[in-house]
Order: sequence, then structure tokens, then C-alpha cells
Amino acid sequence: MSIDDKVRAIVKEFKAYVPGKSKEEIARNYGIDPEKIIKLGSNENPWGCSPKIAEKLMDEVSKLHQYPQPINPELMDEISKFTKMPVENIIVGGDGADEVIDNIMRILIDEGDEVIIPIPTFTQYAISAKIHGANIKWAKFDEENEFKLDIESVLNNITEKTKAIFLCTPNNPTGNVIPTEDIKKIVESTDALVMIDHAYIEYSNEDYDLTDWALKYDNVLVLRTFSKVFGLAGQRVGYGVTSKKIVDYMMRIKPIFSLTRASQASAITALQDKEFFEKCLNEGIESREEIYNGLKKFKQLEVYPTEANYMLVKVKNGMNSSEFCEVLLKKGVIVRDCYSFEGLEPYYFRVSIGTFDENERFLKIMSEVVE
Amino acid sequence: MSIDDKVRAIVKEFKAYVPGKSKEEIARNYGIDPEKIIKLGSNENPWGCSPKIAEKLMDEVSKLHQYPQPINPELMDEISKFTKMPVENIIVGGDGADEVIDNIMRILIDEGDEVIIPIPTFTQYAISAKIHGANIKWAKFDEENEFKLDIESVLNNITEKTKAIFLCTPNNPTGNVIPTEDIKKIVESTDALVMIDHAYIEYSNEDYDLTDWALKYDNVLVLRTFSKVFGLAGQRVGYGVTSKKIVDYMMRIKPIFSLTRASQASAITALQDKEFFEKCLNEGIESREEIYNGLKKFKQLEVYPTEANYMLVKVKNGMNSSEFCEVLLKKGVIVRDCYSFEGLEPYYFRVSIGTFDENERFLKIMSEVVE
Repeated sequence: MSIDDKVRAIVKEFKAYVPGKSKEEIARNYGIDPEKIIKLGSNENPWGCSPKIAEKLMDEVSKLHQYPQPINPELMDEISKFTKMPVENIIVGGDGADEVIDNIMRILIDEGDEVIIPIPTFTQYAISAKIHGANIKWAKFDEENEFKLDIESVLNNITEKTKAIFLCTPNNPTGNVIPTEDIKKIVESTDALVMIDHAYIEYSNEDYDLTDWALKYDNVLVLRTFSKVFGLAGQRVGYGVTSKKIVDYMMRIKPIFSLTRASQASAITALQDKEFFEKCLNEGIESREEIYNGLKKFKQLEVYPTEANYMLVKVKNGMNSSEFCEVLLKKGVIVRDCYSFEGLEPYYFRVSIGTFDENERFLKIMSEVVE
Repeated sequence: MSIDDKVRAIVKEFKAYVPGKSKEEIARNYGIDPEKIIKLGSNENPWGCSPKIAEKLMDEVSKLHQYPQPINPELMDEISKFTKMPVENIIVGGDGADEVIDNIMRILIDEGDEVIIPIPTFTQYAISAKIHGANIKWAKFDEENEFKLDIESVLNNITEKTKAIFLCTPNNPTGNVIPTEDIKKIVESTDALVMIDHAYIEYSNEDYDLTDWALKYDNVLVLRTFSKVFGLAGQRVGYGVTSKKIVDYMMRIKPIFSLTRASQASAITALQDKEFFEKCLNEGIESREEIYNGLKKFKQLEVYPTEANYMLVKVKNGMNSSEFCEVLLKKGVIVRDCYSFEGLEPYYFRVSIGTFDENERFLKIMSEVVE
């Protein structure tokens, strides 16, 4: 016997993790000045975070030796005001929305339970479900039909063992939303938890925001994040809005100190700086139109409609997405190769909104490499 | 059926989490000026964190909108220099050492596996083990014998199902270390993973540091943290040092972005500011002597020897620890009521080192309340 024999079989099936590309890594690997790299690969907010956060962090430095408050009343209050949801229906995660996803899997999944995931979608759902022992039932966003959710592929998979259904809307990486009536049909057809991932909802039509369904249904959890329009991906703050009883179950096993003091301070300031938020949202939507229209002009690309801060693009110049993304990387442009998304042909990449200057440089480089 | 029927049985057994006391909470609840509160409850470094961290955080603010590097080469390099361990034997956690503990349980535990935990000790081990489905086999630090580890109570519990053994040394909350030869005997008697928790090792005798056992044995993981002498409890950075193969298994399922940008920047600076580290360590040990000697004088208290930045104290004035700690709280002093530690009579509290000024005020308040 050795320590290897003590490790769980499922862990042995997982591949060693290959981290995505950061500016720092590209700069090191290709010898490019980090200032010249255009990072449009991770759906971040290119205008950064609120400039008021600097000052708030300085106030916090004298307290970094103290454990964080597990529940920060000021942060809870600001999230409550922003979402118009009661504090007791909110749970904040310290590894962005990923912690909330993991927590949901942890309270629900015993070995052999089932989880339904329509693909292509955010890959973290399947990773978290599998490691907790779930069997994944794949449903689909229909590639033939502009990636509309195939609702029957979800409904037909529901069994007594179904513990959760993940619906990402706007969906990552396709950018489209799932029609409200389809989500309603799914929620009302099961007692399983329906996770509505609204990470990108701010960029979508306001009427479409389903966060208040957390109060209407027992079995809905809406996922929100500070990683996108609030410009805080580096600080890892996400939250779930759901029924009080789900909050209560999740709080029993939550990693209780996982949200750092600096992250709490950053998130509070981000919510209070409404002017910066509006700027990022409005310019973000404008930037999205700019890239969308710019890419539309290339005959060898197909660009998909989007309500998020990124869009899906199909490469039709004979290269697969990995070859294409590698060409861009060498020119200092990071987009997301969608090769690793289950349920997608290997010809797609995802591009995030940039600043207007970044967009211009990006579109110029594209014109050099597409044909 | 309802969503309650979908929740795992083990989660229903867990109690709703009651957070420990923060300065902010005590200030709110008792109407005390936060500046006057003496917090000696959480084994934090009362001198704070390196003053150089402020400047480093300002550099980082412009990058907070970007996802963190999953592995920060500068941080890995600094930890490697500090521990004299190779980079490939180190795994850093984004929720302090708690994430490393959770990761270890996650790679090892299938439902019904066994974990050995001598008590009283850090409560997080049992929480993390149970939620992953482990059966806990309790061993003991012997209350009758100044909390020396009862090594037979560990060895007798080892079976084929044993997946991990937790050895906290210096032990929290008792403050004493486990003799090296006892740890050796345990490590060599099993293939199960032996987790040596060295969260407080900097405050102990340098010769006692067993971090390099991670290279000598396949089945050892040494846990270290930035939450104590480095003064960064609020930033949640911990790490494990272990065999390459354990690092590889853990990396497969690690929450990959969990360490925030601000936390990475803080930890790097903390390691580089050797002068501040030395000051905190030397004054910390001096402070420990001061409190120890001060408390020794009270006949109604029993104080236990310690090699950490806290000490265990038994109350013998007729009050139980909760009553006693409540009296202190009202006077603005936070110590840790050890009531919730499995394996301890309800007469113990734990007190952390303070600044010399805090110690003086603490000992004065103690003289008012002990008799």
C-alpha cells in the first residue's frame, strides 16, 4: 500500500489543472510588454474597478491581521439595496460565484445523484458536480439553432435522482439568454434546485433579471457576481440569492472566513460608486456593439448575438480555434479558445469587450490574421 | 417532495454556524468604542501586518478587475525561500489553511472512510472530515497529563479505512507540541496521510520545525499559514508542503482562482519584509512570557505552558468558561471561550498575545474580575 491507494478514484480521473492565460503569463512566455497585451479572454471589465477602492483599501490595511467578519453587515446591506432582495435571502461567497456553486453541490449531492447541465456552458458546474460524486446528465444549447436551449433535453432528463439543474443566462460562452417561459417551465416541473446563473445579467435587458424568483420559488438559486461589470474578478466576490432555507443549509457548511477583508472593502465600495458602475455598463454595451459590428464584417467569421460582455465567434478560415488563438497570442491578444467547452465543435472562440482603444487595436490585428 | 428532501442527511445534522466574535460585532452589541476593545481571542498578530503592504496594494488596485494568477511565481518563490522547500512541493490555499484541509479531505474521503483526530484540537478538521462523509475516530491529548498526546489512542485507532490523521503541533488550543519521536512513530506506522499542522510553528523552537518531513515521507503534509506571525488573517493565505504526488492530486480539484490578487500581493510583501517578521516574532515571544507570568499569579487560574502565540487557561473561581468570558466581553476584552472544543471540560479559555499595552490593560482587567 502507498498513499496513492488512499486517494479517491474520481480524483485520479481528473486531469491536472491547466490554468488559463493571464497577462503576466503571456508576457513571460512570449516576451511581450504587459502594457501592450490586449486581454479579451476572461469577460473582465476593461475599465477596471472603482477608483474609490484604493482609498478604502488604505483604511483596511491596519486591520488585515484580524480575521474577516464572516458576515459583513455593511456589505449585506449594500447587496440587498442593489438587488432589492432581503438580507436573509443572500449568501456571499469568498471564491466568487464558484464558492456558491461548490456549496450548493456540497449540500445536495450524495454519490450517484444526478445533475442536469445543458452544454456548451460554464465548465465549473460539471467539475464541481463530478467531484461531489454526481452523475451528469447532459442537455443542450442547440448549435444548429443559434444555441437556443433545447428545453426538452432538460425536461426529459429529470428523474427522482435529479438534485440540481444549471441554467446559465446569459449563457457563457454563447451570450444568448434562455426565454423566461422556458425557465419557468423547468422550475415548476421539478423539486430539484434550479440554479439560474446571472453572472452577466447587468449587461442584459433589465426586464429579464429573474433575481426575484428566489423569493417566488423554494427551489431557485440565482447566482450573481462582482467579477464582471463591477471589475473585481481579482478579488473573488460572488453571491447567491435564494430561499431562506437554502441559505440556512449553505451557511451550515460554508467556508466561513473565505471572503477576505480587502475583498469585503472592495465590494462595498464598488456598490456605493454608482457613477462608475453606470459608466462601465453603458460603455460596456457600446463596446459590445463596436466589436460585434467590427467582427461581422469578416466573411470568414460567424458572430453570435449576445446580451453579455462577450460574444461567441466561429472561425471558418480553415483553422481550428486553437490554431487561431495561438496566432492571436503571438500578437499579444488573449481571447478565449472554446476548445475545452463540452458540446462545442473546435472552431469557436469567445471575445470579451475591451476599452474603445483596445477594440480598435484588436480589430486591426484581426484584419491582419483572419483572411 | 420539496427542496428539503433533496438536501443531504449530513447537512441536516450540522448546526447553523455561529460566527466567532469580531471587534466590529462586540462594538455593535455592547456599545463599546472599537478602539478600546482588546481582542485576544483569535491568535492574531497584534502588531498587524507589514507596513510595506499598503504601498504594494496600491500597485495592485489597477489590476483588481483581472482574475488572479492561479499560481503566482513570485509568491511561490518567496515561500520556497522562506521554507527552504522546492516550489513543486508547495500548494497555496485561498481560504487560509482551511482550504488546504478541505482539499485534503476532498481528495481522500469516500463515504465511510476514517479520520483520526486527537482532541482537544482545532475544530475545523472534524467539520471538514464529517462533511466529506468520514467517520471520526477520536484520539486524545491527555487533560490529566498537561495535554500530552496519548499516542496509543492514535495508534490503536488506525485501520485499513484510515485515510488521514491530524496532528496539530503546537496544538490549538493547548499550546504544547507533540514530541518528534511520537510523530515519527505515527507516520511510519501507516500509509494514511499525516497532517502536521504547523500554523504556530514560527513561535516554537526552530529545531522542532518538521516542514522538511514533507520530502522524507510520501504521506506527510505540513500545514503553514500567513494568518499568525505574518499578520494576515484577514487576507486568508495558507499553504501546504507535501510530496509532489499529493500536490498533483490536490491541484486537480483545487478552487483555482481562490487566492485574491490583494492576498497574493500581501503575502509576497510579508515574506520580503524580514525586519517586520523578526520584530513580530521576538516581541511576540516576549509578550507571551509577560501574559504567562501575569496570569500565573492568579491562584484561581491554571495556566498551561505554551510554544504558540496563545495559552490555555483553566478557570477555577466557580464560574464556567462561558460565564467568565461574558464578564470579560462586557469590559471590552475578547478571549476565546473553549467551551466549543470537543474533549475539554467547560472551564477553559484561550488567550492570545497582545501588544505590551494591551497586555497591561488585560492583566489589570483580569485582576478586577478573577477573584
